[in-house]
Amino acid sequence: MTDVKHMKWWGWGVEGVGFHHEDKPGFAPFVVDAVGIDVWREPVPPIDFSEVAVPPSQAGAELIDALTLIVGPEYATVDDLERVVHTYGKSIRDLIRLRAAILPRIPDVVVYPADESAVQRIVDLAVATNSVIIPFGGGSNIVGSLEPLPTETRPVISLDMGRLSRVLEIDEYSGLATIQAGVLGPDMEEQLNARGWTMGHFPDSFTYSTLGGWIATRSSGMQSDKYGDIAEITKGIRVVQPGKLLVVRPIPSSATGPSVREAILGSEGRLGVITEAVVQVHRVPEKREVIGYLFRDWDSALAAMHDINKSDAAPSITRVSDARETAFSFSTSKASHGISGQVQKALFAFLKRRGWNLDEVCLSFIGYEGSSANVAHQKSVVGDVLKKHGAINLGKGPGTLYDQKKFDTPYLRDFLLDRGAAADVSETSAPWSKLKPLYDNVFAAANKAYDEIGMKGWIMCHLSHSMHAGACLYFTFAFTHDGVDPIAQYDVVKSAIQQAFIDSGATLSHHHSVGLEHSQWEVADISEAGADLVQGMFTAVDPGENLNPGKILPTR
Amino acid sequence: MTDVKHMKWWGWGVEGVGFHHEDKPGFAPFVVDAVGIDVWREPVPPIDFSEVAVPPSQAGAELIDALTLIVGPEYATVDDLERVVHTYGKSIRDLIRLRAAILPRIPDVVVYPADESAVQRIVDLAVATNSVIIPFGGGSNIVGSLEPLPTETRPVISLDMGRLSRVLEIDEYSGLATIQAGVLGPDMEEQLNARGWTMGHFPDSFTYSTLGGWIATRSSGMQSDKYGDIAEITKGIRVVQPGKLLVVRPIPSSATGPSVREAILGSEGRLGVITEAVVQVHRVPEKREVIGYLFRDWDSALAAMHDINKSDAAPSITRVSDARETAFSFSTSKASHGISGQVQKALFAFLKRRGWNLDEVCLSFIGYEGSSANVAHQKSVVGDVLKKHGAINLGKGPGTLYDQKKFDTPYLRDFLLDRGAAADVSETSAPWSKLKPLYDNVFAAANKAYDEIGMKGWIMCHLSHSMHAGACLYFTFAFTHDGVDPIAQYDVVKSAIQQAFIDSGATLSHHHSVGLEHSQWEVADISEAGADLVQGMFTAVDPGENLNPGKILPTR
Repeated sequence: MTDVKHMKWWGWGVEGVGFHHEDKPGFAPFVVDAVGIDVWREPVPPIDFSEVAVPPSQAGAELIDALTLIVGPEYATVDDLERVVHTYGKSIRDLIRLRAAILPRIPDVVVYPADESAVQRIVDLAVATNSVIIPFGGGSNIVGSLEPLPTETRPVISLDMGRLSRVLEIDEYSGLATIQAGVLGPDMEEQLNARGWTMGHFPDSFTYSTLGGWIATRSSGMQSDKYGDIAEITKGIRVVQPGKLLVVRPIPSSATGPSVREAILGSEGRLGVITEAVVQVHRVPEKREVIGYLFRDWDSALAAMHDINKSDAAPSITRVSDARETAFSFSTSKASHGISGQVQKALFAFLKRRGWNLDEVCLSFIGYEGSSANVAHQKSVVGDVLKKHGAINLGKGPGTLYDQKKFDTPYLRDFLLDRGAAADVSETSAPWSKLKPLYDNVFAAANKAYDEIGMKGWIMCHLSHSMHAGACLYFTFAFTHDGVDPIAQYDVVKSAIQQAFIDSGATLSHHHSVGLEHSQWEVADISEAGADLVQGMFTAVDPGENLNPGKILPTR
Repeated sequence: MTDVKHMKWWGWGVEGVGFHHEDKPGFAPFVVDAVGIDVWREPVPPIDFSEVAVPPSQAGAELIDALTLIVGPEYATVDDLERVVHTYGKSIRDLIRLRAAILPRIPDVVVYPADESAVQRIVDLAVATNSVIIPFGGGSNIVGSLEPLPTETRPVISLDMGRLSRVLEIDEYSGLATIQAGVLGPDMEEQLNARGWTMGHFPDSFTYSTLGGWIATRSSGMQSDKYGDIAEITKGIRVVQPGKLLVVRPIPSSATGPSVREAILGSEGRLGVITEAVVQVHRVPEKREVIGYLFRDWDSALAAMHDINKSDAAPSITRVSDARETAFSFSTSKASHGISGQVQKALFAFLKRRGWNLDEVCLSFIGYEGSSANVAHQKSVVGDVLKKHGAINLGKGPGTLYDQKKFDTPYLRDFLLDRGAAADVSETSAPWSKLKPLYDNVFAAANKAYDEIGMKGWIMCHLSHSMHAGACLYFTFAFTHDGVDPIAQYDVVKSAIQQAFIDSGATLSHHHSVGLEHSQWEVADISEAGADLVQGMFTAVDPGENLNPGKILPTR
């Protein structure tokens, strides 16, 4: 097959890489307590692919031939595994469905265009043959942006952008790089780093997500405090639309009417296929430090993040876990690393002597970048704020560990799923004044949902992405499912959390986008009139609804 | 009449305030040299309003009655002066037409709604009666966003937002203020300052422009380096549309599909009437300093602005004038103030001794804000960069003067127009690497245009609004007109400059918007496909083209 890399069909990452708990003595007791599962029990592994009944391709020979003519025989395929790999993203809903071989509608053909002109020909062919185009980047989406609608009767083409993976040009004086949309995070950073540059965009999904995917879903990375989110990073965009090419030129800022750039951002394929972008890049910083801190409790942690944001400081990362996520972090420490074992015991004893309640302690990471002088200055300004809130500096050790493990969390879902628990994440942003009630409302909603489904459940949270107007709260939740209809149970929990976001003045998603999963809250979030406006964009570009139909806005 | 304040009908500012040169000894020789005009000659003042033949209102009694029913008799008017005041903005094209009583189509009625529900009723009435709505803020627009199309046969309603002028609420913990759209800059800042807050948005037009106008045109203020431009400042928006209200909730950042917020920004009334916004506000800084610097020449000045931007520094203002604008600044110094008279002579002697060519010196202002410690730190970081580029620190004196005079420039146009010269401004932004060729291309284009019209002309420039990807170049140009068809002459010059922007990879406007004046370059800027997308938004919201028709996109 092609040399485009994909994750394993049934889970996160590549075959052979996964989460292990054997070297983490605190993990088993933590999980029993949280969701009631014994991690030592025999895991139920995913079924073998040979057991999956894959629906046959519904694409006619004429369409396949026409696609083959555009991309060449090795880059247009109806192979079963390829089509299943391109059916879903990696939400817990997706993982459950894959393991249960629930495949009501899968792509009929997967194509790998080599360049923009091939993309244009494929899109035009799709419109001419009334087929559906679903662009595919790294396949890491967790809100249902990639799956064909179950009711789709037209041929479905999954357009994999993996061959468009080059950094084409760096305008070094401006700090702007022209990059093809299909490049995966590590590959892109490697190409940039080789010339001394970085984009500074590191979402949790970094390892298996692409530039085009980030733009199409309004992604945000861990260092967004410094580098901005993808909407701020992206200056120019090229988008293949039916019969034409939309070009947003790389302009720092512009007053040219409603923003076309900001219409493409978050468009999830509904306004065309993003082929290339001009993005802001920065010199790899002379120095980079991530420092760990502890707070007495969530209230003082939130207040500190607020005050740092309102100060003159400019850190690259501001992140703090609530007490439950802090306990989770400690539970995943290796016996031989970080603040674990003897060190952890000594630390806890020290905190106790200071009168801290160990069940309320919150772990925080703050990042600093730039010249050595700037790192020192920022640490000092932030330090003054932290002092007022009684934070304890843990030094660079935990930060280094955080940096090493920061892309590993998604593996945990597969591990838990093997053992009968469903876990996923839901994140939002809200003004600073609304964060505390938002947090309380989400916890209440989740716990009510666990009661409703009658299962033991867990929820934890961290704050990340500080902005002037507010911050992102990121919730991770898990529950033991009944083994009968885990998706129905998941829907109860997830819906309760999302509804609590909207009811608390927060958004349906800060950086995971809408897809199918969140589309029922879209009108509540952007108002009926806002939805009409967005629908107007879709209709203008794609009157035949050939471009990833049904995503973002529910069919109305 | 109403208590809503307006500028004089024929020019900038209120009656009795204008530019005077008598106390500025350097000004007369400068102007003779630049555009060949003797400023001591007898000015030709604007005609008296009684001499203006004002077209009668074309609004029927039924429409007037219905509007009166909504706003009350004193707030719906067909008064001639009111209608002329609401016909144009304040571009040189507008001023020339007003002085020549060129009024092919003026509003038929001016209404002053008291609140959002009145705006909704007016908009719905306009659609029901197939009338045209043109929202009016401070009337400072210079790209033709406010004028009715000359061919308009339907009744034209100018909707003056002046009565919606209150700061409704400040969420102090978040730093977000809810403000009515019709508030003028100074009134808004006064209300905010009274509670210790500032929005930090100070465009040149500040004195006579409104929050709603800033949002509708994508305005940018002098301190955008710190506070962001209006697109970054604005988090929530309420927009009255035909039959409905669009609400963008105040969310710090969101992944909810194409941005509705960024569609309303810059929409110039074509997507409805902006009634209210939630904007970022900041505590009035403890300290604020604007320091003047001199550079040897434009190249070193540009390089320094670039290097400051790429450093770890975070100044609030970065601005530098080219040598010609620097000479202009010196020429407008009062004999008794600033770096003028003896001081100026001593300074020039000093520069000469250092081997500087006085014809190439560039004047710069850099602003610092925040705590005293932050101001000191930023000055030091910026100082290190400036040192490398050989800049000379002039201290706070010139900066204080700049701060006092920063809103005065527009008065100069009326002064020159009284004396036979036409002056206006054109601004853009481009990546850092393109600024030098852009600058050269614009100068070449303007000078070629002056040759073409056979008149003596002048052009000068400053850089302001530094961003990671580039900066704004702001050009001011003036020429002696022939007294026969100054608008035709202006069109030759202005078009040459705008075309040079587009040809040089710059945008048609960084912060003055599109209107009618720039719409011929809109497709070249955002691409044909981009224009189709924007037209799709307009059509979805306003199928009858009742909302400020013809603006942004040329009728196609």
